[in-house]
Amino acid sequence: MTVEQFATRHIGPGPDDERRMLEVVGHDSIDELMDAAIPEVIRWHGTLDLPDPATEAETIAELRALAARNTVAVSMIGLGYHGTHTPAVIRRNVLEDPAWYTAYTPYQPEISQGRLEALLNFQTMVTDLTGLATANASMLDEGTAAAEAMTLARRASKTKSPVYVVDADALPQTIAVITSRAEPLGIEVRVLDVERDELPAEFFGLHLQYPGASGAVRDHQGLVEAAHAVGALVTVAADLLALTLLRAPGQIGADIATGTTQRFGVPMGFGGPHAGYLAVRSGLERMLPGRLVGVSRDADGNPAYRLALQTREQHIRREKATSNICTAQVLLAVMAGMYAVYHGPDGLRDIATRTHRMAARLAAGLRAGGVEVADVAFFDTVTARVPGRAAEVVAAAAERGVNLRLVDADQVGMSCDETTTDAHLQAVWAAFGVAAFDGAVDTAVPADLTRTTDFLTHPVFRSHHSETAMLRYLRRLSDFDYALDRGMIPLGSCTMKLNATTEMEPISWAEFANIHPFAPDAQTAGYREMIGQLESWLAEVTGYDAVSVQPNAGSQGELAGLLAIRSYHASRGETHRDVCLIPSSAHGTNAASAVMAGMRVVVVACDDNGNVDLVDLDAKIDKHRDALAAIMVTYPSTHGVYETGIASLCAKVHDAGGQVYVDGANLNALVGFAKPGTFGADVSHLNLHKTFCIPHGGGGPGVGPVAVRAHLAPFLPGDPLGAHADATPAISAAKYGSAGILPIPWAYLRMMGAEGLTRATGVAVLAANYVAARLRGHFPVLYAGNKGLVAHECILDLRPLTKATGVSVDDVAKRLIDYGFHAPTMSFPVAGTLMVEPTESEDLAELDRFCDAMIAIRAEIEQVASGQWPAGDNPLANAPHTAAMVSGDEWSHAYPRSVGAYPAGVDRAGKYWPPVRRIDGAYGDRNLVCSCPSPEAFED
Amino acid sequence: MTVEQFATRHIGPGPDDERRMLEVVGHDSIDELMDAAIPEVIRWHGTLDLPDPATEAETIAELRALAARNTVAVSMIGLGYHGTHTPAVIRRNVLEDPAWYTAYTPYQPEISQGRLEALLNFQTMVTDLTGLATANASMLDEGTAAAEAMTLARRASKTKSPVYVVDADALPQTIAVITSRAEPLGIEVRVLDVERDELPAEFFGLHLQYPGASGAVRDHQGLVEAAHAVGALVTVAADLLALTLLRAPGQIGADIATGTTQRFGVPMGFGGPHAGYLAVRSGLERMLPGRLVGVSRDADGNPAYRLALQTREQHIRREKATSNICTAQVLLAVMAGMYAVYHGPDGLRDIATRTHRMAARLAAGLRAGGVEVADVAFFDTVTARVPGRAAEVVAAAAERGVNLRLVDADQVGMSCDETTTDAHLQAVWAAFGVAAFDGAVDTAVPADLTRTTDFLTHPVFRSHHSETAMLRYLRRLSDFDYALDRGMIPLGSCTMKLNATTEMEPISWAEFANIHPFAPDAQTAGYREMIGQLESWLAEVTGYDAVSVQPNAGSQGELAGLLAIRSYHASRGETHRDVCLIPSSAHGTNAASAVMAGMRVVVVACDDNGNVDLVDLDAKIDKHRDALAAIMVTYPSTHGVYETGIASLCAKVHDAGGQVYVDGANLNALVGFAKPGTFGADVSHLNLHKTFCIPHGGGGPGVGPVAVRAHLAPFLPGDPLGAHADATPAISAAKYGSAGILPIPWAYLRMMGAEGLTRATGVAVLAANYVAARLRGHFPVLYAGNKGLVAHECILDLRPLTKATGVSVDDVAKRLIDYGFHAPTMSFPVAGTLMVEPTESEDLAELDRFCDAMIAIRAEIEQVASGQWPAGDNPLANAPHTAAMVSGDEWSHAYPRSVGAYPAGVDRAGKYWPPVRRIDGAYGDRNLVCSCPSPEAFED
Repeated sequence: MTVEQFATRHIGPGPDDERRMLEVVGHDSIDELMDAAIPEVIRWHGTLDLPDPATEAETIAELRALAARNTVAVSMIGLGYHGTHTPAVIRRNVLEDPAWYTAYTPYQPEISQGRLEALLNFQTMVTDLTGLATANASMLDEGTAAAEAMTLARRASKTKSPVYVVDADALPQTIAVITSRAEPLGIEVRVLDVERDELPAEFFGLHLQYPGASGAVRDHQGLVEAAHAVGALVTVAADLLALTLLRAPGQIGADIATGTTQRFGVPMGFGGPHAGYLAVRSGLERMLPGRLVGVSRDADGNPAYRLALQTREQHIRREKATSNICTAQVLLAVMAGMYAVYHGPDGLRDIATRTHRMAARLAAGLRAGGVEVADVAFFDTVTARVPGRAAEVVAAAAERGVNLRLVDADQVGMSCDETTTDAHLQAVWAAFGVAAFDGAVDTAVPADLTRTTDFLTHPVFRSHHSETAMLRYLRRLSDFDYALDRGMIPLGSCTMKLNATTEMEPISWAEFANIHPFAPDAQTAGYREMIGQLESWLAEVTGYDAVSVQPNAGSQGELAGLLAIRSYHASRGETHRDVCLIPSSAHGTNAASAVMAGMRVVVVACDDNGNVDLVDLDAKIDKHRDALAAIMVTYPSTHGVYETGIASLCAKVHDAGGQVYVDGANLNALVGFAKPGTFGADVSHLNLHKTFCIPHGGGGPGVGPVAVRAHLAPFLPGDPLGAHADATPAISAAKYGSAGILPIPWAYLRMMGAEGLTRATGVAVLAANYVAARLRGHFPVLYAGNKGLVAHECILDLRPLTKATGVSVDDVAKRLIDYGFHAPTMSFPVAGTLMVEPTESEDLAELDRFCDAMIAIRAEIEQVASGQWPAGDNPLANAPHTAAMVSGDEWSHAYPRSVGAYPAGVDRAGKYWPPVRRIDGAYGDRNLVCSCPSPEAFED
Repeated sequence: MTVEQFATRHIGPGPDDERRMLEVVGHDSIDELMDAAIPEVIRWHGTLDLPDPATEAETIAELRALAARNTVAVSMIGLGYHGTHTPAVIRRNVLEDPAWYTAYTPYQPEISQGRLEALLNFQTMVTDLTGLATANASMLDEGTAAAEAMTLARRASKTKSPVYVVDADALPQTIAVITSRAEPLGIEVRVLDVERDELPAEFFGLHLQYPGASGAVRDHQGLVEAAHAVGALVTVAADLLALTLLRAPGQIGADIATGTTQRFGVPMGFGGPHAGYLAVRSGLERMLPGRLVGVSRDADGNPAYRLALQTREQHIRREKATSNICTAQVLLAVMAGMYAVYHGPDGLRDIATRTHRMAARLAAGLRAGGVEVADVAFFDTVTARVPGRAAEVVAAAAERGVNLRLVDADQVGMSCDETTTDAHLQAVWAAFGVAAFDGAVDTAVPADLTRTTDFLTHPVFRSHHSETAMLRYLRRLSDFDYALDRGMIPLGSCTMKLNATTEMEPISWAEFANIHPFAPDAQTAGYREMIGQLESWLAEVTGYDAVSVQPNAGSQGELAGLLAIRSYHASRGETHRDVCLIPSSAHGTNAASAVMAGMRVVVVACDDNGNVDLVDLDAKIDKHRDALAAIMVTYPSTHGVYETGIASLCAKVHDAGGQVYVDGANLNALVGFAKPGTFGADVSHLNLHKTFCIPHGGGGPGVGPVAVRAHLAPFLPGDPLGAHADATPAISAAKYGSAGILPIPWAYLRMMGAEGLTRATGVAVLAANYVAARLRGHFPVLYAGNKGLVAHECILDLRPLTKATGVSVDDVAKRLIDYGFHAPTMSFPVAGTLMVEPTESEDLAELDRFCDAMIAIRAEIEQVASGQWPAGDNPLANAPHTAAMVSGDEWSHAYPRSVGAYPAGVDRAGKYWPPVRRIDGAYGDRNLVCSCPSPEAFED
């Protein structure tokens, strides 16, 4: 390969590295290694039918050409997606900064304090604005957040009623997602005009939109009281910008608030990604789905942040799950939170006031021109009645470069935002055929709906209003964190590979960033062509027949896939098939998704080698043959092994009438060498944020397309604006989910081509086997397949050492920080182990640095074992070491400072120092604080 | 001001801050403060006639519209400017990363190790490729580098001849710059066809181009020998990419090599900025102009980088100067060096080979089609003879989107580069009317000119070839450095204000980045309109009548201004006027520029208050009345004072027939309040990288436009492709100098408007007076003007403390690092002092953090004075403290570690740690090493 070929940049090891690694692993070539590792029964020997790889420059040119086929219009469509000015300092220093976007989920809180603080800002912003007690650190979008609010209400409500009432003035795509989610759970959704229709006698929850999709701002106090009277909970889906001027949901007793934070500086991106939010009143916080950041303390007693109440999370609740949400939208939540930090309460109020004035002027101008505008309180959106003329008006506005909302044949909706200018109003007036208006306007918010309570009172929201101050705050926080820009993140099952700049740059382009998801097709030809190509390339890579990119996280892809199976069985009159077999080694999300899809989870045992126990499988199939809907397996297995029984497993399930779901989390071990769609599976979801280079963003965004064989294609997700819950469900609020980041996997596939992708897989497997080979003598490597080979990751067993010395997986993980690493995956899939996935992007120098660190740590454990260091006071137990600790005036530990700070080989000048010592998570859970702590808490 | 107004983001202090600062300073309002500070005699009371300020979004929209009026064509014009692929990882993580671009010149080497290492890579790249011993860390462009090579040759040559011979095949703009520079220095330039014409009997230097502008690659061995035989030195202006394939200049005994590194990943930018280079053979290194990075050692004996041989630099040589070059092109040199690091020797050779093959195919195709192509060795450029048809061919190519070089009526030049594709070749063939060519081609480099020596053999050039490795290397280096993204850089006279992201983003756009400086006017309408607006706005701000943006550094602006004065006198028949009066307090560059402009420097004394001594001025004017050419003063003075005598000074000089040059370095104290062009000056240069927000880039780029009153306008710099050395000199190689970064000051002026600019000045002066007021009780504040007020900076006098305690300015500067600051300017303009310029961008919290640190340091000095800490072992003497030092196993200092590491108030978690301890500069000068040291040097 030449310097021009992107694959040589993406893949870390060069030819020399590769030779040395093969020597250690004991194979002659990557081909030979892969032949040995992958069972022939699933091996695919073709060449992927993809375009020849393009150079980085060619790829940018092609994407420019696609982008040029999108039209960036002024968007006044509204419906939860608004124009916004991303502050340039936030775009450059968050969205475009590898220190933020290449970080992983903050499971290692000591090296994640920066984004945890940023997320705490986000939570504080949400709770302050909604007037509720606790908010989590983001949902996938407003639609799925509303669906989660529904299930939360069901859990929390004391009524047995299956009825969920939804305001007819809710966003149409929210109604679609709620309805799609309700059906498999047996929830009955009733969409009512809550202003006029009578509420049912019994219902467990009520969803209100505030302001409504029509723009109307209504006083919901009475409805809240009525709902509470029958034991129902009330969710208010509220616009956070509007809440700077409007009475907060918490003020009228709402139990839950939900919505999106998109308009807080996050581009529309043709539908996403953006951070949805979910906040609850006091008493419901332990029922919140998703990730919650809280304040705890470190080993020195200093305040420190970490994910709170993790036991709520699905990944350890499995079939008891009440939600399958796993990833969040961290990068976007950070942006939205920083938007609030940068503008502060006064700035946000200014923006809201200006937005409202624009809408008020727009309405006044229309009325002055004789157009009927609904006589209601409103914030930014007005609906005009132009009987029979709506389409004509919308077309006339589009000709002037402004997109309006075609509500129906008689009504036009239009939303203002912070980007609205006089010229835009004039274009709209002209489209309606009325004169430009220059008169005085009054506020359209009545006094009793006006906000009177403070918000964003914490100092963080008034300290960073100059760009200089903001820049330094962002730098300070990002410096706290360890991301791929510092070193390896060898997380099993998470595939932390290179997120190349050329893949990332296009997502900032206006032609991708500033497109409304409901923009007319004529304006989105480039987007749709790119998505079509991406879907077809993903189908080629996986061997499936059809792909939908709508699911905006892996969990959502799972749900979409399982719903497709459910619909398929239903279409054949087999609605009784509702059992989903799941191996005991599966990721918890699998079971949770099955529950969300209305299935019963039946666990299949694994054998001592970590493989699915085919005997138990037979037994379970026998027992549930008639009810068998599906089996969900991960391949290679979560143990990182190419199981040889996979083909047989597929056949057995198919014979019993079930469908085979292969979780695509480990696809990085297959691309170019095996295709789930051809070795027996019916459906998979892919994690574009694992195998296909979308960065983890510090805990999201993710994208989880669902890929199916032809017989399931009719049941893929549908357009949320026109979906049928029973067959083509709305999985996300927008048809193409997080379309705004799809240029990333597109560019990756375009640049790698068949040869590059295949080589990447081979090098990933080589790297894992290299690590296994180097460490096997120091730590037992659990599980292996053919010829003792692992797939793309390996599991290091700490249990015997822990038993002998008390040194835990946690100790080793934290000690790795001192060596300058992010820990591997801890205790998954096997408690007491570390799972290492090096990926193809790490070069030999970095792999060796990691192996050397692990071997040095093994020697340190030996010093504990030998009694040289006490069990309670050694570099492992005290890890990680902060600079403040090792430079303290006192030092009374059983080992010298240098051993704590600079274990063998650590680069002194460039050392990464964690900002806090080990964090006591339980303390924080006992003393739950999920908003910004006062500055005094940080005083020495 | 509302949140929408950019000025509220640019200016740090908000209304509350401002009130508190005014209280401390003892004035009621900024207006009142400015009335008190600025002498009424120069005060301007109007409102700047600038467009109303635009928001950030509006500004980006306007720049997009201007950019859209530029045409990005395929450039095959060559002449030292080539298409190049900036590796995206370098663009994002250097050019677009505040950690790199907001850094200052590395005068504080302990906190500049990252860019010093990057510059050492650059120097190593240049010396390896040229085969010479020592290269400096960049020149302003190839033209000025060639001019510096000429004066270096003159100094080094033992002959007395004033003749400098220049190859007629040199780049035309280089010949123009050389000629312009030669004239005032009495050097006689002879442009000869060195292949055919006879060399003069005597000459001091010879400039060769390799390959020539025509593309020809000639064997210069004989010429080198002939030149050496008469005691002349030989400069080879060489293309570094070509040198990967061609015999190095050092191989044939060249004394000097020079050129540009633009094509190493730096966009053309319509002329700049790019890093020129200058390398010399062994024995000449101490004569090198410009900045040179070298290896020395720190207090622990570890290798550490710093600027070497600083005594060579003009800033302390003044009237003995042999060069006035001051700033470099650090940011671009870092990019070019990283391009070499990323590609490595094999990658560069691949790129060169591919480029050469394209040119060879192009030539072969033309010949096959019957077009005459010069029969010479070539690398990337070929010249075709099409008698009488050249313009027609060039036009036909332009129609196909390709720019060729119109050499003359009969000849067309065309250059290939790494971006050249088959489609480009086909377009050129079609333009010539010949068929596409697909035959085999041979190399056009004869064996005896082929490179046989290695290059880039240091491990740094083979360790960072994957994007992951490159990203981490860039992060590691940038983490070593302290830039504006970490905190204040209170450098007197350097105005380290905010470099806003909105100002920076447009420079990456292809429509600004990828334009050749000699592109046809029709393709550059947007650029030229933007530049015209910028020039007119700068004229309005300064009160001058005409502005030229050509000078690509402040020193070049000075030279341009003085040459205009010289030409003006000459035009009036007063060629005898050659005395330039310069106050003793002036920046050394002033005197150096006067020398370069062929003037005699006469120093005027300053009085005890630091003001120009008007009595001495009268005496000097009397003495030199007939020869008086000019006076050069800085206003406010380099002492940071609004001198009241300025108007009188101007009148006296004018009365004597002299011109007044006001150095614009301190313009940040004047904008909106006084205009040099109206208070008596005839000419100024401006530092767009000080007052107008171009970032310092770690030591360049700078832009130094020259502004003049109408009578000097005819003598402003001319087009280097058509300049006359006597009247409109070529100051830079490109007509608009570093045009590529002019969107930055354009955006700043556009967003600030009259009110914002004026307020910025007021807040800058308020901030300096606030610092002076807070620190006056702790350190004497030297010099003040009206009512004890300083202008925009203040000088803190350390001399009494140094005398009493031995604690030096250096100690305080290095101790500030421990407190998390970059030091103020040291010992300029007064030895033993610190000059503090806070600028308007620092908010009160940061100003207070700085004042608190200085007060705490004052208390530390007291502890030395009282004998509590020994003179040789205290936190000041040992500063800065590295993490390795304060966490060492041994600690035998007279103060606790915590005092060393975390002096009062320092944020422990976010502390910036320098990577090295105090550096011993003298050691490195005695043991000069100016290329990358071996890795073993860093072993513990």
